Amino acid sequence: MSIIAGLPPWVVLDPMLKSWLVEDIGRGDRSTNSLHIGEVPFGQAEWVAKAPGAIAGLPVARRIFYILDDRITFEAAVGEGDWCEPGRVVARIEGPIDALLMGERVALNLTMRLSGIATMTRRYVEKIADLPVQLVDTRKTTPGLRLLEKYASRAGGARNHRMGLDDAVMLKDNHIAAIGSIKEAIARVRSEIPYPLTIEVETETLADVKAALESGADIIMLDNMSPEQMRAGVQIIRQQSDRIKIEASGNITLETVRPVAETGVDYISTSAPITRSSWLDLSMKLGDRSYNSNSSNRLNPEKSLGLEKAP
Amino acid sequence: MSIIAGLPPWVVLDPMLKSWLVEDIGRGDRSTNSLHIGEVPFGQAEWVAKAPGAIAGLPVARRIFYILDDRITFEAAVGEGDWCEPGRVVARIEGPIDALLMGERVALNLTMRLSGIATMTRRYVEKIADLPVQLVDTRKTTPGLRLLEKYASRAGGARNHRMGLDDAVMLKDNHIAAIGSIKEAIARVRSEIPYPLTIEVETETLADVKAALESGADIIMLDNMSPEQMRAGVQIIRQQSDRIKIEASGNITLETVRPVAETGVDYISTSAPITRSSWLDLSMKLGDRSYNSNSSNRLNPEKSLGLEKAP
Amino acid sequence: MSIIAGLPPWVVLDPMLKSWLVEDIGRGDRSTNSLHIGEVPFGQAEWVAKAPGAIAGLPVARRIFYILDDRITFEAAVGEGDWCEPGRVVARIEGPIDALLMGERVALNLTMRLSGIATMTRRYVEKIADLPVQLVDTRKTTPGLRLLEKYASRAGGARNHRMGLDDAVMLKDNHIAAIGSIKEAIARVRSEIPYPLTIEVETETLADVKAALESGADIIMLDNMSPEQMRAGVQIIRQQSDRIKIEASGNITLETVRPVAETGVDYISTSAPITRSSWLDLSMKLGDRSYNSNSSNRLNPEKSLGLEKAP
Amino acid sequence: MSIIAGLPPWVVLDPMLKSWLVEDIGRGDRSTNSLHIGEVPFGQAEWVAKAPGAIAGLPVARRIFYILDDRITFEAAVGEGDWCEPGRVVARIEGPIDALLMGERVALNLTMRLSGIATMTRRYVEKIADLPVQLVDTRKTTPGLRLLEKYASRAGGARNHRMGLDDAVMLKDNHIAAIGSIKEAIARVRSEIPYPLTIEVETETLADVKAALESGADIIMLDNMSPEQMRAGVQIIRQQSDRIKIEASGNITLETVRPVAETGVDYISTSAPITRSSWLDLSMKLGDRSYNSNSSNRLNPEKSLGLEKAP
Amino acid sequence: MSIIAGLPPWVVLDPMLKSWLVEDIGRGDRSTNSLHIGEVPFGQAEWVAKAPGAIAGLPVARRIFYILDDRITFEAAVGEGDWCEPGRVVARIEGPIDALLMGERVALNLTMRLSGIATMTRRYVEKIADLPVQLVDTRKTTPGLRLLEKYASRAGGARNHRMGLDDAVMLKDNHIAAIGSIKEAIARVRSEIPYPLTIEVETETLADVKAALESGADIIMLDNMSPEQMRAGVQIIRQQSDRIKIEASGNITLETVRPVAETGVDYISTSAPITRSSWLDLSMKLGDRSYNSNSSNRLNPEKSLGLEKAP
Amino acid sequence: MSIIAGLPPWVVLDPMLKSWLVEDIGRGDRSTNSLHIGEVPFGQAEWVAKAPGAIAGLPVARRIFYILDDRITFEAAVGEGDWCEPGRVVARIEGPIDALLMGERVALNLTMRLSGIATMTRRYVEKIADLPVQLVDTRKTTPGLRLLEKYASRAGGARNHRMGLDDAVMLKDNHIAAIGSIKEAIARVRSEIPYPLTIEVETETLADVKAALESGADIIMLDNMSPEQMRAGVQIIRQQSDRIKIEASGNITLETVRPVAETGVDYISTSAPITRSSWLDLSMKLGDRSYNSNSSNRLNPEKSLGLEKAP
Repeated sequence: MSIIAGLPPWVVLDPMLKSWLVEDIGRGDRSTNSLHIGEVPFGQAEWVAKAPGAIAGLPVARRIFYILDDRITFEAAVGEGDWCEPGRVVARIEGPIDALLMGERVALNLTMRLSGIATMTRRYVEKIADLPVQLVDTRKTTPGLRLLEKYASRAGGARNHRMGLDDAVMLKDNHIAAIGSIKEAIARVRSEIPYPLTIEVETETLADVKAALESGADIIMLDNMSPEQMRAGVQIIRQQSDRIKIEASGNITLETVRPVAETGVDYISTSAPITRSSWLDLSMKLGDRSYNSNSSNRLNPEKSLGLEKAP
Repeated sequence: MSIIAGLPPWVVLDPMLKSWLVEDIGRGDRSTNSLHIGEVPFGQAEWVAKAPGAIAGLPVARRIFYILDDRITFEAAVGEGDWCEPGRVVARIEGPIDALLMGERVALNLTMRLSGIATMTRRYVEKIADLPVQLVDTRKTTPGLRLLEKYASRAGGARNHRMGLDDAVMLKDNHIAAIGSIKEAIARVRSEIPYPLTIEVETETLADVKAALESGADIIMLDNMSPEQMRAGVQIIRQQSDRIKIEASGNITLETVRPVAETGVDYISTSAPITRSSWLDLSMKLGDRSYNSNSSNRLNPEKSLGLEKAP
Repeated sequence: MSIIAGLPPWVVLDPMLKSWLVEDIGRGDRSTNSLHIGEVPFGQAEWVAKAPGAIAGLPVARRIFYILDDRITFEAAVGEGDWCEPGRVVARIEGPIDALLMGERVALNLTMRLSGIATMTRRYVEKIADLPVQLVDTRKTTPGLRLLEKYASRAGGARNHRMGLDDAVMLKDNHIAAIGSIKEAIARVRSEIPYPLTIEVETETLADVKAALESGADIIMLDNMSPEQMRAGVQIIRQQSDRIKIEASGNITLETVRPVAETGVDYISTSAPITRSSWLDLSMKLGDRSYNSNSSNRLNPEKSLGLEKAP
Repeated sequence: MSIIAGLPPWVVLDPMLKSWLVEDIGRGDRSTNSLHIGEVPFGQAEWVAKAPGAIAGLPVARRIFYILDDRITFEAAVGEGDWCEPGRVVARIEGPIDALLMGERVALNLTMRLSGIATMTRRYVEKIADLPVQLVDTRKTTPGLRLLEKYASRAGGARNHRMGLDDAVMLKDNHIAAIGSIKEAIARVRSEIPYPLTIEVETETLADVKAALESGADIIMLDNMSPEQMRAGVQIIRQQSDRIKIEASGNITLETVRPVAETGVDYISTSAPITRSSWLDLSMKLGDRSYNSNSSNRLNPEKSLGLEKAP
Repeated sequence: MSIIAGLPPWVVLDPMLKSWLVEDIGRGDRSTNSLHIGEVPFGQAEWVAKAPGAIAGLPVARRIFYILDDRITFEAAVGEGDWCEPGRVVARIEGPIDALLMGERVALNLTMRLSGIATMTRRYVEKIADLPVQLVDTRKTTPGLRLLEKYASRAGGARNHRMGLDDAVMLKDNHIAAIGSIKEAIARVRSEIPYPLTIEVETETLADVKAALESGADIIMLDNMSPEQMRAGVQIIRQQSDRIKIEASGNITLETVRPVAETGVDYISTSAPITRSSWLDLSMKLGDRSYNSNSSNRLNPEKSLGLEKAP
Repeated sequence: MSIIAGLPPWVVLDPMLKSWLVEDIGRGDRSTNSLHIGEVPFGQAEWVAKAPGAIAGLPVARRIFYILDDRITFEAAVGEGDWCEPGRVVARIEGPIDALLMGERVALNLTMRLSGIATMTRRYVEKIADLPVQLVDTRKTTPGLRLLEKYASRAGGARNHRMGLDDAVMLKDNHIAAIGSIKEAIARVRSEIPYPLTIEVETETLADVKAALESGADIIMLDNMSPEQMRAGVQIIRQQSDRIKIEASGNITLETVRPVAETGVDYISTSAPITRSSWLDLSMKLGDRSYNSNSSNRLNPEKSLGLEKAP
């Protein structure tokens, strides 16, 4: 079972998860809230894959249900990043039926979105798995979902690029244009940033590459270059240092990723798995057996949904 | 220029927009923060379409820049939902260069995502534009983005389905299974919900359709039926009432949407434009002219980014 | 024991309940915080009705104490909506004395307010209990308390009207005046809203009723009409359809509610139980027995108030 | 024009006001959002008293509209606490019609509630206006509204009692019972609290009064005593000190407030204006003249509701 | 073991503690998050004093760890306010190693800061321990930390002064200058504030003292006076009343605190322990024994950090 | 005038600044709120240095006043980081007197704290100004103030170290102990983190230094070594690479900072300016001239404090 790093602790994620539940529930789930007044039987459900793909997000889905009602148990049946064929059970859930139905959509929406990202990432990664190069993501992520979309990217086999504007510097064409030269831009930034941070420079020509090299860039991005240009760029850089990281970027597709990888770059960045993937289809099937779980109900009634038998 | 309803007032949206800026900026934009210390020139930028599609989200993008620095002006060059060919300028922006660069990614990410949804929605809608039927969305939306993804759905020409669990009732297979029968489920819910709310029932067979009809459903969903079944379902329902709304659902594709529409249903629901669309590619180009705009700077310096000349 | 639907899950309500505790506690309860340093005995308390009325809010009161200190147990002795005579014990509470005293006022304030609403609602409902009509509430609710005041309305026997501006449309005189005609107003709105939503139109004359009927209103409100006018309005509407809902509104009192009900309308809306009710008087009596509950103390000391014996 | 202290700065109140708008608007005002797409005319409205009473809350109502759309102007026509007869215009409002309609209910609900409190407070105060005694409120306030309900109490002519558990100490029967004696309770608290805070003790007998006096209470509450007992209590206290404040409490009504006042106490506390008052009826009338205010629209379009002509 | 009042309940403090963890963790602890993927052994740690001082903040440190991961146990080995020599173990902690390391810095930073305050407070207090006078703090506190810095002040042996602008009135030179006279300032304020609140007046001359006395001040501050002036001021005040509290303020140092105390004032206020103290040095030592604690892991896996073995 | 980078945009800082105002104001400023009812004159004030030091925080102080009342103008009279002798005016402020007094304490507390940090930082920096080495800070910062304390560190002339657990990796003794070896720890982390992030390793012996060097550390910290050891460490590292950054740490004082700097390290980290500095004393003097500024009052009355003349 594969294991994935990258989830921050719940104290970081919980506010998001709660806001997503509230987004869907609003003033209350009119459908389930009236069905089982005062009795709320327990039920079982399974999540089943309806299309082939790599699963990502189950620990977060479990937490979403837990926030809604901590009597719910959620057992993942596959590891994060595992590839599943249609029909495969990916999780088993048990708890008060109303809570299962109330949390279903939010938990599934997230997992389907993240698994879609992991799935397309996996397809890219497989193309270059035998080469000394890593696929990386970008800052093109859905607003509000960056942490988890980048987690899904890792579940699919990619490395993460910087997570935001504050954990690394990237000097792009617009920045450099605003200042005038790569050299001046790097010089200004270097003296102001936290010292452990690295500076990446976007280059579009070999002249840019040389300028970046001379100005002390830590990472050099070869942007929108042909494989030949890239190869030349790699050569120029490697002549000077083994420590400078080289990233290829720009219109990477499933067709071009391998030729680019063969140029000798260290990293290939693409937003495609996040901006161009479809959700992986999953569905929740409610089991036949439902029962009244009074005993566990009594263990911590205050934690329930507020749907249980009125006092 | 087309106009789109559906955006709630900023008092509702602002907390989200702010959280998205903070998600990207984190502890500060290391790249731009050091480039223009104490001088921050004004600059101009254009947003340009790089692929054909329907634009959605420009008023929200404008607001994102405004929140970051209220000296920025953002002028949309196309209407919401307008179709744009590659190369078309969709917005012109002017303001402190650092703020333009700092807000660029968040504002573009949102607009590219929403425009991608509007674009695929448009393709579906065009298939059935001449028929008395409307395309509608579902609750399969990215966690945290429902309001805006559903707004994009409207920009693409669809109607919205319910926005959450609280503005309409949908009794699905899982709900009905939990209670035992459509009749009992509707009866329980009807007496408990706010009285203006409507109840929709998911049906999979014509027997279900009849049961829903007899139990007083306001909306009947024909789920995963063949066109022939749908036609029969429509006939059964219309014999009894013109007021009951009929929705078709289940694996609607660009190929199947028209045959389904021809069965006489009122609405066709599909999550595809939200779960299966790619982002519409847009890019921001910084203009040549940048200048020091001291006068407007002085008008309300407290509102600026905190990057301006230290006191 | 009567049971009431309508409470959303705690993930929706908790932020409010916490803010209310903080509103009262501020920087700390100066009175209790110094009384039992390091020993905090457990105590028992009862909530007793001091006036006759219908109780509402006990599950929320229980949750308020739980948030403050999860070692508190709160047992409701009556059902939501139950009628209680003075002297009746409505709840029994047990826990650290300081927490009982610290949470007392907030929990009581809420329950007294909600029970006052349920009590007056009950008086209205009893006047028309034998007729096929239902009492409904309005949007005149205390800012911040709508969900719970409408829950109390249900506990008193009423149905809820729409919960906010987003779960149904109500076209009032001001809206219609702004547009020019009922017909145009309905037409504009119908094409823009989520399709399951219903449209209610406020009418003040029989001409308005006819216009609303012809324009396809789902619900017609007869506003401030005499019983005779209402009867005529009902007749006009029923001639066309059994499905259109009819609501009477405007200066409904305990005296007028029955004559209005006898006109044949489906719903009678009044804000009186929420805008004109007094709080139902309840008091908390601390029991004699207090004791040191070290064992339960040790089970989860981190959850306590922070008042316990310093480490 | 009377003037009232007691409103904290907006940085304190704004989060509440915003949450109240969001409570009502939810995912958007379906009624107004579709009526004026892209044109939003400006309109005028008046708030008119429909029952006699003292007005309170207009500055807060103005702020609520301002938060929704800062192009709205709101001019109060009467002072806070002013008495108004039915038909009196209390405020004039001008701005985009949709914003006026969207904010109407929240702003009116608050003002009607606060004015109801001010009105009943005024009736109590008038009974004792010629005596050297002041009416004060209690901690029985609607959860979430304490600051503003106590502000309304002041607008009606009362003084405020403590605002929460942290700005003064009140030792009640339950506290004293938990410790054993008034003396011990005061001693424990005195040494722990911020030194400027005062300690009030609830007394039910003259023996209690003496104990409180000897233990150094700053304020002595005579709770549920007969006027004779109160007079005796006042005498006992005044023999020792002129600085100790004396408060009468317990079942104060419009009938009993004057005899109690005549006993010589300094303060009479009652929750009645907050727990037993009806809302003061106010209504908003939209004026005839509506017009397109393009110029002011252009001044700061980013601040508008998001309803204006799409870009 | 000494015990300290003054901590408000966790419902008040938790939002701060969570924000501090998020401030440090940001998007995730890159160092520990990758070290123990899927196995996370339990470990033990000790907090050890590295300098002599009075400890304060352990209950809050415990809560910080609890919020991060509720499987952590934190046992304080010394009482709040206890004096510790270098090498003394002040707390023992046990739990998942990653959580121990992730929470270490935040919990230590807070405790070191608070203990530094308690330590310097203690030094002041010891100078005057035999005199009938109390050391008090001021409103000069680190933004965001007032509650806890004032708690530390108490742990060091001081009393608290007012906690904010709302629990007592202090009329300073700037206020009085703005109004014109002490008398007028007191008169205006007295009639507007909650009646239990006390009014303190800052005086710089004996003439001020007399004016404050005549105007009914509850507390008189002798600001920046010489010991002789103070003695005279005390005499003037005591001639009139024993109940008026007298506070000395202005440049109190370890050298001057005793002579000032001997003037007969009741309170001496100084910000020095909060504005001039160094942090007390503490360090965390990880124990040798680490082990896999599967059983407790299974008790409530949903509460863990999200670092455990992926599902 | 010196200029300092490092302040994130206000969208990041505003929530903190607002929470600090609310922390101090609570339910309202009882002192000023009653002084100028309905007239609120404008006044002028100066901030004056009372001790020698480097100023930091004025842009944030200006923003704090702006949030409280946007009619306040705040003009810094010195640059960030500028050294000021006692008596120097550092800022001039003008606005409604009540707002000046209400915001004074929070704005001053912050500026005094930050200036204290800048002042001590400056003293360290001056000791090594002529050497090719930079002083850096640590993660020992006051909870909730990291961004601004690190900004003050920069204002004093230091560079920032990492800002949190997520923008660089630091493997400390506790991490390495938990894993077993530097090599294994680096290997595990390197493959999991965002690729632009650097890894720093804490070393205590020259053996550690060699292990770190062989394992590919980006930054090597020489912790608690003697100058001789450090010199040896630097030599070992420099033999292999010029790009590896070398940081000295551990008990750096004003006496030891220069000898350590002379060992050839690149960075010297110390928490002293943040954990051991006193606040720099500043005071606010209210000017004589106060006046009624009705005109500016009318420009945007909704933005005022809510203290102005009631409507």
